[in-house]
Amino acid sequence: MTGIKTSGEKNLMLFSGRAHPELAREVAEQLGVDLVPTKALDFANGEIYVRYEESVRGADAFVLQSHTAPINQWIMEQLIMIDALKRASVKSITVIMPFYGYARQDKKHLGREPISARLVADLLKQAGAHRLMSVDLHTAQIQGFFDGPVDHLFALPLLADYVGGKVDRDRLTIVSPDAGRVRVADQWSDRLGAPLAIIHKRRDPNVANKVLSADVVGDVRGRVCVLVDDMIDTGGTICAAADALFEQGAADVIVAATHGVLSGPAADRLKNSRASEFVFTNTLPTPGELQMDKVTTLSIAPLIARAIREVFDDGSVTSLFEGAH
Amino acid sequence: MTGIKTSGEKNLMLFSGRAHPELAREVAEQLGVDLVPTKALDFANGEIYVRYEESVRGADAFVLQSHTAPINQWIMEQLIMIDALKRASVKSITVIMPFYGYARQDKKHLGREPISARLVADLLKQAGAHRLMSVDLHTAQIQGFFDGPVDHLFALPLLADYVGGKVDRDRLTIVSPDAGRVRVADQWSDRLGAPLAIIHKRRDPNVANKVLSADVVGDVRGRVCVLVDDMIDTGGTICAAADALFEQGAADVIVAATHGVLSGPAADRLKNSRASEFVFTNTLPTPGELQMDKVTTLSIAPLIARAIREVFDDGSVTSLFEGAH
Amino acid sequence: MTGIKTSGEKNLMLFSGRAHPELAREVAEQLGVDLVPTKALDFANGEIYVRYEESVRGADAFVLQSHTAPINQWIMEQLIMIDALKRASVKSITVIMPFYGYARQDKKHLGREPISARLVADLLKQAGAHRLMSVDLHTAQIQGFFDGPVDHLFALPLLADYVGGKVDRDRLTIVSPDAGRVRVADQWSDRLGAPLAIIHKRRDPNVANKVLSADVVGDVRGRVCVLVDDMIDTGGTICAAADALFEQGAADVIVAATHGVLSGPAADRLKNSRASEFVFTNTLPTPGELQMDKVTTLSIAPLIARAIREVFDDGSVTSLFEGAH
Amino acid sequence: MTGIKTSGEKNLMLFSGRAHPELAREVAEQLGVDLVPTKALDFANGEIYVRYEESVRGADAFVLQSHTAPINQWIMEQLIMIDALKRASVKSITVIMPFYGYARQDKKHLGREPISARLVADLLKQAGAHRLMSVDLHTAQIQGFFDGPVDHLFALPLLADYVGGKVDRDRLTIVSPDAGRVRVADQWSDRLGAPLAIIHKRRDPNVANKVLSADVVGDVRGRVCVLVDDMIDTGGTICAAADALFEQGAADVIVAATHGVLSGPAADRLKNSRASEFVFTNTLPTPGELQMDKVTTLSIAPLIARAIREVFDDGSVTSLFEGAH
Amino acid sequence: MTGIKTSGEKNLMLFSGRAHPELAREVAEQLGVDLVPTKALDFANGEIYVRYEESVRGADAFVLQSHTAPINQWIMEQLIMIDALKRASVKSITVIMPFYGYARQDKKHLGREPISARLVADLLKQAGAHRLMSVDLHTAQIQGFFDGPVDHLFALPLLADYVGGKVDRDRLTIVSPDAGRVRVADQWSDRLGAPLAIIHKRRDPNVANKVLSADVVGDVRGRVCVLVDDMIDTGGTICAAADALFEQGAADVIVAATHGVLSGPAADRLKNSRASEFVFTNTLPTPGELQMDKVTTLSIAPLIARAIREVFDDGSVTSLFEGAH
Amino acid sequence: MTGIKTSGEKNLMLFSGRAHPELAREVAEQLGVDLVPTKALDFANGEIYVRYEESVRGADAFVLQSHTAPINQWIMEQLIMIDALKRASVKSITVIMPFYGYARQDKKHLGREPISARLVADLLKQAGAHRLMSVDLHTAQIQGFFDGPVDHLFALPLLADYVGGKVDRDRLTIVSPDAGRVRVADQWSDRLGAPLAIIHKRRDPNVANKVLSADVVGDVRGRVCVLVDDMIDTGGTICAAADALFEQGAADVIVAATHGVLSGPAADRLKNSRASEFVFTNTLPTPGELQMDKVTTLSIAPLIARAIREVFDDGSVTSLFEGAH
Repeated sequence: MTGIKTSGEKNLMLFSGRAHPELAREVAEQLGVDLVPTKALDFANGEIYVRYEESVRGADAFVLQSHTAPINQWIMEQLIMIDALKRASVKSITVIMPFYGYARQDKKHLGREPISARLVADLLKQAGAHRLMSVDLHTAQIQGFFDGPVDHLFALPLLADYVGGKVDRDRLTIVSPDAGRVRVADQWSDRLGAPLAIIHKRRDPNVANKVLSADVVGDVRGRVCVLVDDMIDTGGTICAAADALFEQGAADVIVAATHGVLSGPAADRLKNSRASEFVFTNTLPTPGELQMDKVTTLSIAPLIARAIREVFDDGSVTSLFEGAH
Repeated sequence: MTGIKTSGEKNLMLFSGRAHPELAREVAEQLGVDLVPTKALDFANGEIYVRYEESVRGADAFVLQSHTAPINQWIMEQLIMIDALKRASVKSITVIMPFYGYARQDKKHLGREPISARLVADLLKQAGAHRLMSVDLHTAQIQGFFDGPVDHLFALPLLADYVGGKVDRDRLTIVSPDAGRVRVADQWSDRLGAPLAIIHKRRDPNVANKVLSADVVGDVRGRVCVLVDDMIDTGGTICAAADALFEQGAADVIVAATHGVLSGPAADRLKNSRASEFVFTNTLPTPGELQMDKVTTLSIAPLIARAIREVFDDGSVTSLFEGAH
Repeated sequence: MTGIKTSGEKNLMLFSGRAHPELAREVAEQLGVDLVPTKALDFANGEIYVRYEESVRGADAFVLQSHTAPINQWIMEQLIMIDALKRASVKSITVIMPFYGYARQDKKHLGREPISARLVADLLKQAGAHRLMSVDLHTAQIQGFFDGPVDHLFALPLLADYVGGKVDRDRLTIVSPDAGRVRVADQWSDRLGAPLAIIHKRRDPNVANKVLSADVVGDVRGRVCVLVDDMIDTGGTICAAADALFEQGAADVIVAATHGVLSGPAADRLKNSRASEFVFTNTLPTPGELQMDKVTTLSIAPLIARAIREVFDDGSVTSLFEGAH
Repeated sequence: MTGIKTSGEKNLMLFSGRAHPELAREVAEQLGVDLVPTKALDFANGEIYVRYEESVRGADAFVLQSHTAPINQWIMEQLIMIDALKRASVKSITVIMPFYGYARQDKKHLGREPISARLVADLLKQAGAHRLMSVDLHTAQIQGFFDGPVDHLFALPLLADYVGGKVDRDRLTIVSPDAGRVRVADQWSDRLGAPLAIIHKRRDPNVANKVLSADVVGDVRGRVCVLVDDMIDTGGTICAAADALFEQGAADVIVAATHGVLSGPAADRLKNSRASEFVFTNTLPTPGELQMDKVTTLSIAPLIARAIREVFDDGSVTSLFEGAH
Repeated sequence: MTGIKTSGEKNLMLFSGRAHPELAREVAEQLGVDLVPTKALDFANGEIYVRYEESVRGADAFVLQSHTAPINQWIMEQLIMIDALKRASVKSITVIMPFYGYARQDKKHLGREPISARLVADLLKQAGAHRLMSVDLHTAQIQGFFDGPVDHLFALPLLADYVGGKVDRDRLTIVSPDAGRVRVADQWSDRLGAPLAIIHKRRDPNVANKVLSADVVGDVRGRVCVLVDDMIDTGGTICAAADALFEQGAADVIVAATHGVLSGPAADRLKNSRASEFVFTNTLPTPGELQMDKVTTLSIAPLIARAIREVFDDGSVTSLFEGAH
Repeated sequence: MTGIKTSGEKNLMLFSGRAHPELAREVAEQLGVDLVPTKALDFANGEIYVRYEESVRGADAFVLQSHTAPINQWIMEQLIMIDALKRASVKSITVIMPFYGYARQDKKHLGREPISARLVADLLKQAGAHRLMSVDLHTAQIQGFFDGPVDHLFALPLLADYVGGKVDRDRLTIVSPDAGRVRVADQWSDRLGAPLAIIHKRRDPNVANKVLSADVVGDVRGRVCVLVDDMIDTGGTICAAADALFEQGAADVIVAATHGVLSGPAADRLKNSRASEFVFTNTLPTPGELQMDKVTTLSIAPLIARAIREVFDDGSVTSLFEGAH
């Protein structure tokens, strides 16, 4: 006989970098698999070494890495993991980056800047990625930075249902912390049937970058304001926004965001803020000093696990959000 | 002697597709060049034929095409023009698309949609484009869709100075026609030192796509409202927004947008609108039935010509907008 | 356990653009499938929107579009359909273009022309196509324009058996309408065992493009001449050729071609021609005014359906034509 | 100061492989340059080693190799030369292949064949070629196999003027040796104002590849027949064609072809043929046993040298053939 | 129903070029398959023609070619075979090159040289290869030249066990024939637990390439020296090394190498050498004049067959060497 | 007139990342230019922001970054700098990485490892690099990892002349610290005319990775041993090698290496070693605690500056090392 015929088989394997092992373990548990045993270490000069401790040939590999600080190290680790998978003859590589690093540099704000979010997509592709999966991209256009399928997951149902379950919806007003994030607020407004307000910074037309005032556009007096954003980094903008809302007579302020980046002064700012609650998902690990009562963390792992399973089974990721927005 | 040495030379050549010849001629005039004589015609079955009638070898080619209706024909013509330039040994190809076709399909709004704006960038790159030049991209992230330099020009100074020169700035309020376009309004607000308002559509959380009301967020009573957007297509949203503003007591409404797409029912809607003036640039040709008193068209040609010259001379396109935003 | 193993499965899905829905429906019927429900529409400015209404993840997608007028619109639609499939995680994309648009621009006839047929192959590849399927390419070399497999189907058996079944083969002479299409005539000659003749235009060596005479090279007196070509566009060349044959004493003339492009003046010319019959396949839709008695259309759908099935089943497309030439 | 500015300069350098050094020297002489001194040798196991003996950084490199036997060795040498140039930082690489190897495998004649002519274009591109230059491609579509500019030179004026200068044009008939080469004959017919004939092989429709007869289509009695082709390889077809012409009463037969491949039995066949003269160019070296009186070799070197100069000077290669066809 | 679902299947097919058919047959036998019937021939001018005589659609193709002399011909044949497979719709292409041609040109030893080993990897990739399989690469870094998986097989266990089984291990000293091959000797030393020596050429620092002496670094007196290398080409270095060892009092010398290139003067040198045995594998065919008593050839076919099977079955090639080094 | 012709000009611009600003300033000084003013900073979550503060359009950009710890941050910064240059329309980008990060992972030592050195080359290419410049690559094959020119500089003349100028050459023996680095020792031996020795670790063939002894192969008694390597990282191997040499009666030990990585315990080890001197270049910054008497640092800046100038002027980098080895 000329050839050897056998029936095809496929094999889902889940890999985790070292950035956020708790999330990976939780996803693995939801899927009912073990993470592939992986040796990963830093050499003395910081170079990363990775090796998989069992055969991965022919696998549909899912490689989860959370782009938390030190972010460049974890991105490079993910690239190196992909290179090792490609050279080890896996069948496909799906990159899971619950928080997409450098997503804020998604355009040139000024001449002679990089577009680092596109660069990240290109680096992943070059290393060998076939598909990306991410949660609440900073702008949806980032999907278009990758030359291949992007499974874009939404935390909105998780976050909004939590907030909507705590507060009488008639008292809610959704607030965007600046002009650039109104679209997110609009989606919350649709889902919860609540009115919208915006914090608008007016700048001096004659002096570059001089902010004259932070206007609250829309009515917030006596309302429970939900300040929404895709991510909170140092917390400066959002805490100032909360202050402005209280100044305009808001009854209470709840802050909700998918990604708790929470760098630098964030811990102090959140602690000192008059906002009553901060709600995040665990796309990024929560720094220890932020594990406080007013910070609520909802797990994104069940959603990621379901999406992986849909991808592997040729099901529909879109179907996970039907009815959701 | 082993080789032949000569001094290098470079040669700017400007090419125009058939979509908007008036704009090309105006740009050529500003540059002080003739358009390269080009034979372009449609065969009986609609296939396009293009040939350049003089040698273009070694040239820095700038290929201007306006993505107006029939838009697919003009995009394909531009691709064919690029292919012919590549095969004719030009040194570089800069695509000028004053209005970037398919820019609105810059993300997947729903599963199983294309990202046509990325596709357009990829097609241009594949055909042979080295650089893009465009005016007021629908979202700035589209710059990141092209794997190479994008010179992004802004019509804001042109439009805002025109409006700011007509109306007392203290009376102005800048209005975004929906939640997704607030960023443009914000830039106008900065430049003219005027407050901001937003038209916000509230949808029924229980019934898909059912709009309950179009709220005006912010104060417009007695104000001269400038409704701003990057483009006006059928005019439906913008004319409804103008109506809502008048209902809320606006003193007057001026509409300003870079790109006058003005398809289908736009002519009727603009004619019947209570808005006192519509201001566009000529990135797209103005349909004959829209050449009416309340429509003002400002020429973008001087800006494009200056940008071409900066590109050719290794100058700075960024410098054209310094102080501008 | 480290991974999840399941048996592999594959899924044929058939998609149709809007250019020639009858053909797509016929192919679907032959295959025993439904076309994938697809929303496709033109926005007011001509931009095309496409969305698939059920999940396509993991599918072997076959995307049929006939490159008929308005040809640039239909090519762009096919590119957009491919982009949407790629981003929706299909496993493979086979482009079916029964008539390959721009095939006649398969070389530079003059300096500074495009090679649009190569451009079309590159655009399809860039958008995400893995394989092409087409019928009777204008020149077989076009297969080499695509960087991947091309399944090249032949209508010759269909057409030649039809003609050979109507006329006594001893009376037939196969005629090429010009020097460039002799190879097609040669294949007919081989299949039907008939002699060959050629219409040869002699041009004035001293005056560019001046045709001195249209010689009939070979003997046609008293013969039933079958004028063959891959496509008939405006019908000018072919009808003039028929006239020349009658002048040289031909008993009858039958015209046979795979692709009935039939643009512009074709309807009038065919109607007025002395040729007794025109035979085409339905790779392109037949314009209404050409549905006349002397025009015969043979369906290519069974052949396309069989080829799709061979591709999907890892069978052999070559085997469909064994014994055929 | 931030940078160092200097005026640009460009440098033409000509390189030759070892396949046809006489042609390279002649081209160099016409250009007034020396060939770049190059060390090239075969190791004992046949691996080729190449090194350039002076700096080539920044040069516009022209790399001439004739694809003569042993053809695979010379193609590989040219690829290795290109790799070395790329890694040595030349500015551009123009590949000159006067005869394009594997040009006859420009399509799949049968299923499961390669398209080696496309493969050759891809290998050259991959190695680093920016532009191809070749003479009389087997089919003009091969231009479209390369993703970049192809300068296609024509030997027709050289050959046809030679033949036209020897024989009274009124006595000439141009003959194509088979159905596939009629287009070349047509061009000769146009240039010399002479009628056309074709040798047509009729095959048995019931028995594969069985040739029933070689008909001469067209009138050749008493004529001086010029049998034209792009290349003569073993000479079998062309010498049989000459015999058929003499059988039909031809007064004389002259054979003209651009490329004298002249492999295997060609020398004997040409010697024994009744054809009075065989005219070639020197795109390929003439084997020693073919240096006989009835074989005339015209030099292509002046044409190649002029084309190189046009390319280097950003002139027009097209202009070299204006008025020529 | 919208689509057609069937279970997936995969099909291993083994193809052989014409360079070393004995090895291919042996591998096929070990696998229990027939080689795919293939028509391969040289045209008169040396161009290679290849066609597969049965359908290969959907196959996992393994293409074995030994890069022996005439090496450029066999590399080109392998490239053409790959092109034909790609265009015939195979699913994957694994290139098996037991000896990797041009591996010694794996870096620039001097300026303006090629890196031909990278070029070979790039040409294979460009033609359509998805994976490489090779035995004992000249340097392991060559794995990194290919953009994809490389299955690197080791003959060391085969060779070292053979030598270790013949000679008392306590008497063995492993010798590197020059400074550049110490790493191979080191691996032998590890596996057989034997000490190491090196032949070191001292060159005159004042005169380029002048060798002053060939020192034996390490103690070899009374020892059975195993001179090891990855390949023996002309045998000059290795036979001179054997002489130097005998001069230093070695009791015996055995030469072991994976690849017996054995070009040019190798046969004479091996015959005349005082070394008692030369051990190779059959990655390359053994020239007839080298089939002598002191030359031992061990078959690599079982190892290649096992590796192919691991690749096809998504097993582990690494596991074949566990415990081996 | 149809176009605008101007004379070409070129512009060298030098950019520096933040990893090793002293080296960049020294190179700039040698070249007589200022570094391009660049804004570079880390956001709170570690994302890097870069912007050039003057126009760079059309420049030949040289981007220097030393791959020191934190190495992943500096590699990412260099990638981002390249992306910004590409999008700012520079003409060419030469990456200068005096020490090539991840160079030691230049092959798979075991199955399922990455080849990170190839990955780094690919990432740089993907970001937009046209050319690499580096000093003493860990293995010369790494040149072949980049698809483009690599200017490979050698510190050997600098280091060897320094050592050779301090010690009587007749007393010197060059020592390789292990079997894998003999080639570097061999080059020193050639340049200084000194004999060679090797430290050879013998491993237990029955127990994985168990080293039985560290033999000194060759004679070192009473000699001044120069232990040479391309880089010293933690200093473990090299200090143990120095000990072994002293045990074998070496008179003195000098350690010389191009790259002083000097991570972790290196400072303590060097301080405590009996070796009398450690000589490095400044391709990497020297940690403060290593600025001690027995550590000598030679500047590589003049060599890099000369190489940049040769590249910019289309001169010869090879010529910088002629006579050197």
